[in-house]
Amino acid sequence: MRTLYWEHNKLIIIDQTKLPLYLEQIICEDYKRVIVAIKRLEVRGAPAIGAAAAYGLLLGARSLQKQPTYINFCHKLKIIKKEIEAARPTAVNLEWALNKMISALSSEKNINAAILTLQKTADEIFSQDVQSNELIGTYGASLLSKNSHIITHCNAGALATCGIGTALGVIRIAHKQGKISMVYADETRPLLQGARLTAYELSQDNIPVTLITDSMAAWVMKNKNINAVIVGADRIAANGDTANKIGTYSLAISAKTHNIPFYIAAPLSTFDFDIESGDDIPIEERNPNEIFYIQDRRIAPNNINAFNPAFDVTPAYLINAIITEYGIIHRPNKEIMLEFINKLKIQGVL
Amino acid sequence: MRTLYWEHNKLIIIDQTKLPLYLEQIICEDYKRVIVAIKRLEVRGAPAIGAAAAYGLLLGARSLQKQPTYINFCHKLKIIKKEIEAARPTAVNLEWALNKMISALSSEKNINAAILTLQKTADEIFSQDVQSNELIGTYGASLLSKNSHIITHCNAGALATCGIGTALGVIRIAHKQGKISMVYADETRPLLQGARLTAYELSQDNIPVTLITDSMAAWVMKNKNINAVIVGADRIAANGDTANKIGTYSLAISAKTHNIPFYIAAPLSTFDFDIESGDDIPIEERNPNEIFYIQDRRIAPNNINAFNPAFDVTPAYLINAIITEYGIIHRPNKEIMLEFINKLKIQGVL
Repeated sequence: MRTLYWEHNKLIIIDQTKLPLYLEQIICEDYKRVIVAIKRLEVRGAPAIGAAAAYGLLLGARSLQKQPTYINFCHKLKIIKKEIEAARPTAVNLEWALNKMISALSSEKNINAAILTLQKTADEIFSQDVQSNELIGTYGASLLSKNSHIITHCNAGALATCGIGTALGVIRIAHKQGKISMVYADETRPLLQGARLTAYELSQDNIPVTLITDSMAAWVMKNKNINAVIVGADRIAANGDTANKIGTYSLAISAKTHNIPFYIAAPLSTFDFDIESGDDIPIEERNPNEIFYIQDRRIAPNNINAFNPAFDVTPAYLINAIITEYGIIHRPNKEIMLEFINKLKIQGVL
Repeated sequence: MRTLYWEHNKLIIIDQTKLPLYLEQIICEDYKRVIVAIKRLEVRGAPAIGAAAAYGLLLGARSLQKQPTYINFCHKLKIIKKEIEAARPTAVNLEWALNKMISALSSEKNINAAILTLQKTADEIFSQDVQSNELIGTYGASLLSKNSHIITHCNAGALATCGIGTALGVIRIAHKQGKISMVYADETRPLLQGARLTAYELSQDNIPVTLITDSMAAWVMKNKNINAVIVGADRIAANGDTANKIGTYSLAISAKTHNIPFYIAAPLSTFDFDIESGDDIPIEERNPNEIFYIQDRRIAPNNINAFNPAFDVTPAYLINAIITEYGIIHRPNKEIMLEFINKLKIQGVL
């Protein structure tokens, strides 16, 4: 399953709003189409948004090929960067990928060379994510025992990344090691990424999956011998507080109540060390019609309000470990996170 | 709003599966149609199921008018009773109402007199529920302060009862007292009773309502100054453990985590003193298609499993109070419940 890839100077994306009923691709020939795809959730999942944004900026750069000077090129490219950045506020990977792209230009002096560098950087972001997924998967699988029953929420799978996924990367590698008995997939209202994407991905890979409504997770924890909850992330603050799909916070509370380990699986690109705690993470609120309608069917009366935050923040104290491509952060808090950052600085990663 | 009523020897029911888009009635001329209505959730909500079952048995009795002897009549009536009883397993009100109907016949000796007694008893069950709702509402409202923000789950309203509702009865009376600032209604997957019924009922009564997905409740508790969670019940065990719509358990855990009082509003007919604890309450599992489809739209891939318990059990220690028509049971547990039972016995209620 290739969520997104670059081919013949175009960005090809699986249209995730059509899954699981239709497997269709969107061909993005300009950056504006990439922005639309991100806004509409045709491409979604923090790492996939990052890679899509990088290729979006590359498309933007290519449209500026005929600019009279390199300064004009850079000026206009930064405007495009800001436009793409505004597509969705919560997943920090978007910002991270775009900053990485712009930073790569620091020693460039002409347009053609700059475009080549942007191409190389976008490809690197893509292939690093593929590799990160494998490492996260391997680290994460080491936390699981034989015959594990797992709950996951939303989709942190191949469809959310460039590779095998983060949370589902852990599940895929654990499954190869014979450790997965059952994955309970929260359907993940309002947009049903669990039902439409996670259940689809896992069933395609013949990994046993049982779909539940989000409201059943606590009851499943009590009755189905759940060994771990594993989810992805959209932004992780410097103290370990983690923004992820709405419903994650509730799931983490229930996991704590049942003494079930709660794991976040996310690459370093999801960390935002500039933000002290989850209180400062911007939470996107989306159109109430996502709640009032399911597909095109109205399910609620008229003349009522709805509250539709796309994400919530799970405080670090509810998280047993954050699984990254650089290892596992056990019992995250401000100090433990700082140790992790310092280790990465010593290794030259940061 | 009249969820159900008896007219010209027929039971008239609002078809709740069609709400909020269509307000249609079903006319039940025989008891088999009542069973179908209960199974299909055309009529639902523990107290409403009880009243519908009573009138269903009355329809059954009327069809036996021409039986050769009273003994034949009674024999066949008991078979019909068992049929109706099997329609849904979790809500004890069904069993309770049918037992009350049969008990009422203890001193009868002929068919016509028996039918008259059954009519009177069914009408009593109906009107007692109307009255209970008012009392529950008044007791419950006393627990709320001005400007309350409430979360409710599923529909424990007029549509679930013969009167103003249990949980929504509390909200209606508190609203008249100027105490309700906002009701957050969980949409209540899979069958969306919160979106379709609770949001509809409250908006019809001009009570401010905000629809949320079930997965948002914990986040709303953290961010929207929630003062109480109030829900109904389908069966309350002798120790206070309470079966209610799936998702209630998760909500109660989140309420406890946020130190928000969690209230059950239910009439005495919902109590099952024969059952020691929630472990013994039968939990109905319904067709997985309720999860795979929303209305007639498939939202999940083929070839996957689903788990679809219609109810869960909230242990008594998560419940701050059970609000009944005979007063409020604070901090229910085995001993407190026994005190309550003894008080009712002294009063001659039990």
